[in-house]
Amino acid sequence: MDQYHILLIRCTDRKGLIAAITGILFRHRLNIMVMKEYVEPVSNTFFARLELKGEADPESLTEELAQTLPEDVSVLLNPKKKKDIAILVTREHHCLSDLLIRHHFNELQANVSLVIGNHDALRSLTEKFGIPFFHVAAQDKGKEFFEAEMLRILDQYTPDFLVLAKFMRILSPGFVARFRNRILNIHHSFLPAFAGANPYKQAYERGVKLIGATAHIVTDDLDEGPIITQKIISVDHEYDVRGMVTAGHEVEKSVLWEALRFMLEDRVFVTRNKTIIFD
Amino acid sequence: MDQYHILLIRCTDRKGLIAAITGILFRHRLNIMVMKEYVEPVSNTFFARLELKGEADPESLTEELAQTLPEDVSVLLNPKKKKDIAILVTREHHCLSDLLIRHHFNELQANVSLVIGNHDALRSLTEKFGIPFFHVAAQDKGKEFFEAEMLRILDQYTPDFLVLAKFMRILSPGFVARFRNRILNIHHSFLPAFAGANPYKQAYERGVKLIGATAHIVTDDLDEGPIITQKIISVDHEYDVRGMVTAGHEVEKSVLWEALRFMLEDRVFVTRNKTIIFD
Amino acid sequence: MDQYHILLIRCTDRKGLIAAITGILFRHRLNIMVMKEYVEPVSNTFFARLELKGEADPESLTEELAQTLPEDVSVLLNPKKKKDIAILVTREHHCLSDLLIRHHFNELQANVSLVIGNHDALRSLTEKFGIPFFHVAAQDKGKEFFEAEMLRILDQYTPDFLVLAKFMRILSPGFVARFRNRILNIHHSFLPAFAGANPYKQAYERGVKLIGATAHIVTDDLDEGPIITQKIISVDHEYDVRGMVTAGHEVEKSVLWEALRFMLEDRVFVTRNKTIIFD
Amino acid sequence: MDQYHILLIRCTDRKGLIAAITGILFRHRLNIMVMKEYVEPVSNTFFARLELKGEADPESLTEELAQTLPEDVSVLLNPKKKKDIAILVTREHHCLSDLLIRHHFNELQANVSLVIGNHDALRSLTEKFGIPFFHVAAQDKGKEFFEAEMLRILDQYTPDFLVLAKFMRILSPGFVARFRNRILNIHHSFLPAFAGANPYKQAYERGVKLIGATAHIVTDDLDEGPIITQKIISVDHEYDVRGMVTAGHEVEKSVLWEALRFMLEDRVFVTRNKTIIFD
Repeated sequence: MDQYHILLIRCTDRKGLIAAITGILFRHRLNIMVMKEYVEPVSNTFFARLELKGEADPESLTEELAQTLPEDVSVLLNPKKKKDIAILVTREHHCLSDLLIRHHFNELQANVSLVIGNHDALRSLTEKFGIPFFHVAAQDKGKEFFEAEMLRILDQYTPDFLVLAKFMRILSPGFVARFRNRILNIHHSFLPAFAGANPYKQAYERGVKLIGATAHIVTDDLDEGPIITQKIISVDHEYDVRGMVTAGHEVEKSVLWEALRFMLEDRVFVTRNKTIIFD
Repeated sequence: MDQYHILLIRCTDRKGLIAAITGILFRHRLNIMVMKEYVEPVSNTFFARLELKGEADPESLTEELAQTLPEDVSVLLNPKKKKDIAILVTREHHCLSDLLIRHHFNELQANVSLVIGNHDALRSLTEKFGIPFFHVAAQDKGKEFFEAEMLRILDQYTPDFLVLAKFMRILSPGFVARFRNRILNIHHSFLPAFAGANPYKQAYERGVKLIGATAHIVTDDLDEGPIITQKIISVDHEYDVRGMVTAGHEVEKSVLWEALRFMLEDRVFVTRNKTIIFD
Repeated sequence: MDQYHILLIRCTDRKGLIAAITGILFRHRLNIMVMKEYVEPVSNTFFARLELKGEADPESLTEELAQTLPEDVSVLLNPKKKKDIAILVTREHHCLSDLLIRHHFNELQANVSLVIGNHDALRSLTEKFGIPFFHVAAQDKGKEFFEAEMLRILDQYTPDFLVLAKFMRILSPGFVARFRNRILNIHHSFLPAFAGANPYKQAYERGVKLIGATAHIVTDDLDEGPIITQKIISVDHEYDVRGMVTAGHEVEKSVLWEALRFMLEDRVFVTRNKTIIFD
Repeated sequence: MDQYHILLIRCTDRKGLIAAITGILFRHRLNIMVMKEYVEPVSNTFFARLELKGEADPESLTEELAQTLPEDVSVLLNPKKKKDIAILVTREHHCLSDLLIRHHFNELQANVSLVIGNHDALRSLTEKFGIPFFHVAAQDKGKEFFEAEMLRILDQYTPDFLVLAKFMRILSPGFVARFRNRILNIHHSFLPAFAGANPYKQAYERGVKLIGATAHIVTDDLDEGPIITQKIISVDHEYDVRGMVTAGHEVEKSVLWEALRFMLEDRVFVTRNKTIIFD
């Protein structure tokens, strides 16, 4: 019986690459329903995401692709369909609420395994939806202890992705390394940007007309990781700082949801410090 | 020496189609730089637009593709790179101005061969940019005569596309048939839409908050042809009818430009009453 | 001690109207923090919304305004700050979820008194947040009985506004008359619009590039009432009907929330078939 | 006979201010058609823009306002209706083209007195529309000489506003001081922002998904002046640096046009480093 498959490929580009790939798929009697590809010109790297239909023998197909394609190839056939995710929060609820509701109504192609909060504020909401909530206080015993405690809990659930849903703590490089390219975060962005403390206050004082948010993959450089989604909302001089923050919440929620959807559907490739998104 | 080629394919879909196409391209030593494809599920039709690099023998390549692919295949290798276009106008300048400026600075991948106006109002502007302007009065001798006169002029220039840039006359099915899928038009759109005369007045009276414009391919059904681009602009209760019309101009200009660019770069396929756009 | 007041005024316009109003406010020692006004030119009607600070005697102030301003004046000082609302639903949760979450976190300037569903599907969600849910089946005994049953329940709660959050039944003129200008609804809008059954299917077949939603006040003309908010979201040929519906949900949620906020903050005036919105 | 007047007021706020102003207007038999006001809370400053109808004696009205309102009041009745503007350019045409076309068709509420270019590239375009073009080379004799030469030309035309339409030279504080709050500029903005050279290249390397532009008033802090308008356009990984620049042009043109329109219609107040815009 025909099945639906996702195939992800990444390797150095060379002439005839697509012909080689599609030839193998044809011999395996797989029909290409959707094919998205891109050659990143700086590094001459080929990226592709294919949706296939047919009765495949995953092992022999993957092997044949690996043998035929350039040496540095990375092939992933049928990535886990429903990922397990852990959501990390602090006090603000808007991103968590959005994800819990979508999860509850099966609109999130993921299983929310747990929520960790460095405050206890969102326990009641989380538990309403039957999801385990863990409070790990950040202040008490230093960052090392804090992260060790989180890792201890995460190790029990082995989530595929961590989603920082307004989680207001900076993660150490060591922690990030444990989940390379698997931590999603959002931060506010402004045109022009304001570095330093209290960016909304700076934005208010400069009288910006747009407030934005960026969803990105967490790397060691805080908030400087590869960008997945960016959106904006309009404001004007009648907004005070509080109003700007509130407007910002709507955008944060919206970019996080879109970026997470792309991640869960295996549409995001990361190369150097940017993303290729096959949406 | 390597050259850049555009390849457009359309045919019934079947298993192994992409492998067959890319295999042929590989044997012709063509490297696939960009490949966009889509299978329209209702009619099971395959559409593809490829950008290729290499030294191709167009004749033998086209022939081999035609012989290998399903019988109903339509193959177009290297469509004319710089199309000739005719712009049809009435009195409003904003769309024409935008195209003339872009043409003047070589930002339009087209040659503006001529402008036809059913009024003479835009002659001076057109001639400033060295483009021939023809005034064909619509009122005088009936539509048949009007269109015959336009066709007589158009026949001298054999443009690839007609661009209706706020051309306020309805073209007859006979005229449209002469330029099947080659006439681009814009019309205002509102949410919700207002049929009948004076739609901006209706929109004003209903107090709409958005004004839109749609660029579409002209078919026999007036303003019901396949949509290429749609955009909107926000308005509020302080806009009078005139203000709404002015706001609408900005969107009209913008959708026409985007849609025309897609047409000129051979990114638009038409199937039934919709478009596939490989942007 | 100084207090914050909202003052809403509506009357025929005449010279010196603003001076008369602001003079009275000054004599009552009220400071004007924000003043928004608009003269609707067709009917020569003056609308104003003021935010005031000071110690007012509401009774004497209202009386003085009523005596000084044109005869047809309608003055409302300090409308109820936290309105009671009833939410009517059918099966789709996205709008209800959004409102319940905002209500739960005190972000909705309203008290959600109850939810009525013509299906029982959303009971569990509603009750999670401690809100009474009433299931009134629509099919059983005819529309008259259905609406009578809803009115019986609503009469116990006397809500200020009814919010149709994807409520898929048409309300009779008699029912609507009971809540004149107090029922908020949303409907999908397309550019161009599609009347008749299954608009998303029509939109898909026409290949629209934008999907919109309109929040409006319910009048006897189904979905033809005064518009409060309109928004759009982009789609392309890769969206199937289901994908368009899903995209539409995001816009529906967003317009309903914005429109409801305007209503709850007394920013919406209705005149003929349009709105004046002092945002 | 009734005339239309614009009245601009700025002063320290105090109780009864609007009553005082509107009382004076009433006694002068002026009808308030539109009134927009805002109290900036940090500095407690009152700003208002009024549109009035009636037969006013400007001198006595202005005097009475000045005497009645707080000492620091600045009153401007009937600012010059059609401002004279000078446009400064370098090589890129898109902003200049847009303004020249709008000016040619009387859509710009201004008189374009002259264009100055530090290159000669845009002379031909400018002269097509009958506008004087001055080439002042920047490289030759140092900045001081360059600015002196521009001032010599500008002094002949005494423009009300300078519009930097992709003018790629930094103006000295001395030059800026000559046109305080009267120089309009645009710059690209990104979320997040990239300082330093070649921001589009940085944006490309980071894989931004939005490109923006900001129109602002020029102050001594380069590109840090009060913001009037900001807009964005979407891009994706398929855009190369050149494509991002081209996309950016559309936004630059659009923000400059909107910001200039606000300036010409006297809708912009500047306070500290931000704007109040009564649109």
